[in-house]
Amino acid sequence: MDPIGVAVVGAGYWGPNLVRNLRASPELSLGWVCDVDGDRARQVVGPDNGIRTTTDLDAVLEDPAVQAVAVATPAHTHVDVARRALQAGKHVLVEKPLATSYTDAEALVRLADAQELVLMCDHTYCYTPAVLKIREVVQSGMLGDLHFFDSVRINLGLVQRDVDVLWDLAPHDLSILDFVLPEGCRPQAVAAHGADPIGAGHACIAYLTVQLSGGAIAHSHVNWLSPTKVRTTIIGGSKRTLVWDDLNPAQRVSIFDRGVDLASPDEIGADERRQAAISYRSGDMVAPALAEGEALRGVAAEFAAAIREGRPALTDGRSGLRVLDVLEAASASLEYRGAVVPLRSAR
Amino acid sequence: MDPIGVAVVGAGYWGPNLVRNLRASPELSLGWVCDVDGDRARQVVGPDNGIRTTTDLDAVLEDPAVQAVAVATPAHTHVDVARRALQAGKHVLVEKPLATSYTDAEALVRLADAQELVLMCDHTYCYTPAVLKIREVVQSGMLGDLHFFDSVRINLGLVQRDVDVLWDLAPHDLSILDFVLPEGCRPQAVAAHGADPIGAGHACIAYLTVQLSGGAIAHSHVNWLSPTKVRTTIIGGSKRTLVWDDLNPAQRVSIFDRGVDLASPDEIGADERRQAAISYRSGDMVAPALAEGEALRGVAAEFAAAIREGRPALTDGRSGLRVLDVLEAASASLEYRGAVVPLRSAR
Amino acid sequence: MDPIGVAVVGAGYWGPNLVRNLRASPELSLGWVCDVDGDRARQVVGPDNGIRTTTDLDAVLEDPAVQAVAVATPAHTHVDVARRALQAGKHVLVEKPLATSYTDAEALVRLADAQELVLMCDHTYCYTPAVLKIREVVQSGMLGDLHFFDSVRINLGLVQRDVDVLWDLAPHDLSILDFVLPEGCRPQAVAAHGADPIGAGHACIAYLTVQLSGGAIAHSHVNWLSPTKVRTTIIGGSKRTLVWDDLNPAQRVSIFDRGVDLASPDEIGADERRQAAISYRSGDMVAPALAEGEALRGVAAEFAAAIREGRPALTDGRSGLRVLDVLEAASASLEYRGAVVPLRSAR
Amino acid sequence: MDPIGVAVVGAGYWGPNLVRNLRASPELSLGWVCDVDGDRARQVVGPDNGIRTTTDLDAVLEDPAVQAVAVATPAHTHVDVARRALQAGKHVLVEKPLATSYTDAEALVRLADAQELVLMCDHTYCYTPAVLKIREVVQSGMLGDLHFFDSVRINLGLVQRDVDVLWDLAPHDLSILDFVLPEGCRPQAVAAHGADPIGAGHACIAYLTVQLSGGAIAHSHVNWLSPTKVRTTIIGGSKRTLVWDDLNPAQRVSIFDRGVDLASPDEIGADERRQAAISYRSGDMVAPALAEGEALRGVAAEFAAAIREGRPALTDGRSGLRVLDVLEAASASLEYRGAVVPLRSAR
Repeated sequence: MDPIGVAVVGAGYWGPNLVRNLRASPELSLGWVCDVDGDRARQVVGPDNGIRTTTDLDAVLEDPAVQAVAVATPAHTHVDVARRALQAGKHVLVEKPLATSYTDAEALVRLADAQELVLMCDHTYCYTPAVLKIREVVQSGMLGDLHFFDSVRINLGLVQRDVDVLWDLAPHDLSILDFVLPEGCRPQAVAAHGADPIGAGHACIAYLTVQLSGGAIAHSHVNWLSPTKVRTTIIGGSKRTLVWDDLNPAQRVSIFDRGVDLASPDEIGADERRQAAISYRSGDMVAPALAEGEALRGVAAEFAAAIREGRPALTDGRSGLRVLDVLEAASASLEYRGAVVPLRSAR
Repeated sequence: MDPIGVAVVGAGYWGPNLVRNLRASPELSLGWVCDVDGDRARQVVGPDNGIRTTTDLDAVLEDPAVQAVAVATPAHTHVDVARRALQAGKHVLVEKPLATSYTDAEALVRLADAQELVLMCDHTYCYTPAVLKIREVVQSGMLGDLHFFDSVRINLGLVQRDVDVLWDLAPHDLSILDFVLPEGCRPQAVAAHGADPIGAGHACIAYLTVQLSGGAIAHSHVNWLSPTKVRTTIIGGSKRTLVWDDLNPAQRVSIFDRGVDLASPDEIGADERRQAAISYRSGDMVAPALAEGEALRGVAAEFAAAIREGRPALTDGRSGLRVLDVLEAASASLEYRGAVVPLRSAR
Repeated sequence: MDPIGVAVVGAGYWGPNLVRNLRASPELSLGWVCDVDGDRARQVVGPDNGIRTTTDLDAVLEDPAVQAVAVATPAHTHVDVARRALQAGKHVLVEKPLATSYTDAEALVRLADAQELVLMCDHTYCYTPAVLKIREVVQSGMLGDLHFFDSVRINLGLVQRDVDVLWDLAPHDLSILDFVLPEGCRPQAVAAHGADPIGAGHACIAYLTVQLSGGAIAHSHVNWLSPTKVRTTIIGGSKRTLVWDDLNPAQRVSIFDRGVDLASPDEIGADERRQAAISYRSGDMVAPALAEGEALRGVAAEFAAAIREGRPALTDGRSGLRVLDVLEAASASLEYRGAVVPLRSAR
Repeated sequence: MDPIGVAVVGAGYWGPNLVRNLRASPELSLGWVCDVDGDRARQVVGPDNGIRTTTDLDAVLEDPAVQAVAVATPAHTHVDVARRALQAGKHVLVEKPLATSYTDAEALVRLADAQELVLMCDHTYCYTPAVLKIREVVQSGMLGDLHFFDSVRINLGLVQRDVDVLWDLAPHDLSILDFVLPEGCRPQAVAAHGADPIGAGHACIAYLTVQLSGGAIAHSHVNWLSPTKVRTTIIGGSKRTLVWDDLNPAQRVSIFDRGVDLASPDEIGADERRQAAISYRSGDMVAPALAEGEALRGVAAEFAAAIREGRPALTDGRSGLRVLDVLEAASASLEYRGAVVPLRSAR
């Protein structure tokens, strides 16, 4: 089967990584790199290798050999570039965030549907070996019903000028949450609490609580001001609990057969017998071996597979939309000093 | 100076620890142990040693040699026992919580004031070598202005029948917060989010956000369902940040000279120059040596010193009241699904 | 079945632990506590409970209700007390070390054999849940052939007056090594290197290498001068490798399905193809759940079972003898500045 | 001042790193890259940038603009290339090991002396921020007298075909030991114990003990078969002890004010008062901030500075010679199954 002709638009911070990984993917054939800065595009491409560079997006979109476009331009331009590509009949992969607003992103999703094209979000973290394994574990039912999803992503991080810590760091947690959640368990409402103790002009510390359908809860602590780095997610279930410590390369994922069990009301008959019905499990822990490999290679492979098979990508436009839904509600909550804000999808 | 005559009321779970530590304190002289179960009182006291046991609280309170009473009865009886002791002119030490409601506790505080007696809360954790050191560090100004106080206290814990996870575990964090906060930095409002995914009848997981005056934020994650145990508090300041990991006996307290600095608006003149004004510090870390010693010995010594010196104890009735203020607001917030509830003290 | 009548001789440092655990064992009935200091014996026994105390060992040994004696006297008296007990027809449990010399210990072993009595060493560590699990794992063949046994036991420890760091700390490692080694894999020779940089009069740091039959190697690093505490043992095998970190209560034992495989010479035919024949495994890691319980209860239970069943205890006199064999060879090696000293058992 | 003209010989595994760092050093001007494989040399150099490539070493050595040569050829060719360069009047930097035998390395050192040229070993590890800080700490006297140097460098590592685990991994420890040891404290004798349980043809596990002058001891555990990775060095001193954990990026170097003190015999007068004279310190721990930067940049800067200032480099030929002295003695000890082998330098 011929490889799928693809172009990269945007050769800045993330573009070179995309170029490298798309070139290394046998399913894809990189034909163009487009950037407003022609020199930058040429530099990313390197010496003669048959990849054309341009500053003119139309030139790319008019090339019938280009079947798909990967967009790595600044966030506020995602919508425009992606829309033009979809209108030109190209499949589109967009660096996160899909758009800077839910409304814009929704329009893209509808356009892709109407055009019957693949619209995929580059939620890179979802394609790391750890998160792929976590998704497999959660969706296999090994954890049982989901009870809680607790994430801490703190560090002495770069204080951003344009976005607060929620928009900078929480998209990672939210796209992973969206990726691993089992069917039928969905965010309903959001509350966010933040602080800007250094006077940066927006929150540098934030706590985000997401109510999930079925009574489960998700929570994310994001913080640019912590002197120590923590990147730990605990996913609690009725049968087992998984701990992901991304800073422990020797044991990133641990699955504990430990927990609290409660006999169901039917079984115990009366409220006052509840205490007697509590029991504690303390079984083995397993740290599964993880595959190796760069996440972005997985993104490229999934993009190609979704195009070939005419199906939505694992992290399709709708997943990007769901993440934006939570983020916008979180921003509204921050503005209202912690009010609980229902999601659009749950209204 | 003669030691202060003291009686212990309540010989159950915590009573024996009190008895042991009061007996070991040269400033105090334990004369009575009182319990509704006379056998239990006798067992705690042990063979002949001059300590009397009784089931009759009045007998204790009528003894003029008893100048002070330590109350370790069940929580719902604290108010009654403490009030009778204060009315009898005795100084009082009460196991946490001071009372089961703010109103009750407030009445005790007023009574003690009127009687000019010491009313002290046994916030034991505050007298551990680690927390004493933390208080010293915070109040010395070494951390600068307080930016955030983040605590995680999670474990596969005993699911309680009578109280939710907030009332079980958060009092530790809140009494420590109260103990170490610098003058003028006080809780203003509270939001709590919880979940009861196992059907225990009340929250087994909770996230508590406390807005502090001056723009700082405190947050506590308490959880009975985590398979791994975490007990870590990060106290961020404008100059340094302290990390307390209570599960790392080799390095409980670490003080980092790391952080983000922002030149003040005056210095930089214009909003758009803000980014340029951000700088990052990355200096040494110091883990101070901690004294050794049982926390409850410190409680006994402080109780005796407060009585001798006629001054409020470090953890006086008002500190217990402030903790109850936050807990009651947190319960209200949980009930209203996360609404932000202002504290009584901040209304 | 009637419980076995037992007496404890020696009520000093370790005696009270023995008394507590023997009393709690339904298989045993503690009748006497004997100590040269009668007050100490009475204090250990506590108020009236039918246990007699004495300073006269003969009184104990003449009591026909005493079938077994547990010896917790100072090390240099073990041989004398144990010999008298065996001669009186009593089964004997001896706190480690069995004796202060191989020759003395060997005489005890022979006497016990001749008398057809149980002689057991109290190698307490062997009865911890972790070491019992390790033994089970090693002897099940799950690790394959033993490749190496590496132990680090370092700490800012109490510098002993009478014994060097080898005799203070290495007996733990050596009794565990003896306990878990599979049949047919035995120590052959020993080299020890030490240093006394503080002038304590004997080694405060020592490295002990034990050559095992079959080409495997064991090594122990013991050190009183390390500011950090490490208690880690790695047991490498041809199939899996086990890591025991005794300071990590949340994950003491980890079994790694990781390692290096080499096709056998037969399979590869020629020396120069060796490199091609190396492959690396990187499978799951399992941290097995460990039972709870005090090690000394296990010691008591095993002592009783060995007596009942007329069989050697798991840590019988011969195991104590083997440990002394290594220790004496290690001391000789230290004296000869690191010379390799063959064991008696391997000569 | 004009930059020093330099050439790189050998463009294989390590060469590209050297090329990159030498090009980035303003003190140096890279003029040539020489390799037996001309294509590889050209590839390392990249597009037109004025650096010449060749397969002819003589062409490089005849160029008067070349004042210095960096040798990154296979180990067995180091001596030949370095000798030709020295004979041609060039300063020489040699990738470790300086040579494959002590005798060869010694000849190089003498030649460099006779020619009054700089001969430097690329002991890269010594120029990491951590090791530079450790050297500063040790040589400042902050640790007091050196008591022990204990290093563990274990991992599931690549089993090498040509060299055993000692020659593969111990050179790192030995070059660091040589780099940080204070004046007057030098290796005297060596014992090595090893095992080859997988049949690799040489030791895959080794324990190396180095006796240091003054009664101190150094020890290194190197191991290709450990499922877990450990890279920890403890440097114990009479005043403080330093722990270097190279796998903990958040706290690589920790300096403990903890230890055992012994009053000197003069002060205490008699042997039996020794025990009374032991005391324990337990002060603060400090983790110093470390500079950032690539170690090889430091190597390049030191090479240039040594040339400019006409002085030996910090890791000069003699340091390479000392490392080889220990390695050869260790190999002899391994061959003699652990015999203690005195160093040439100590004979």
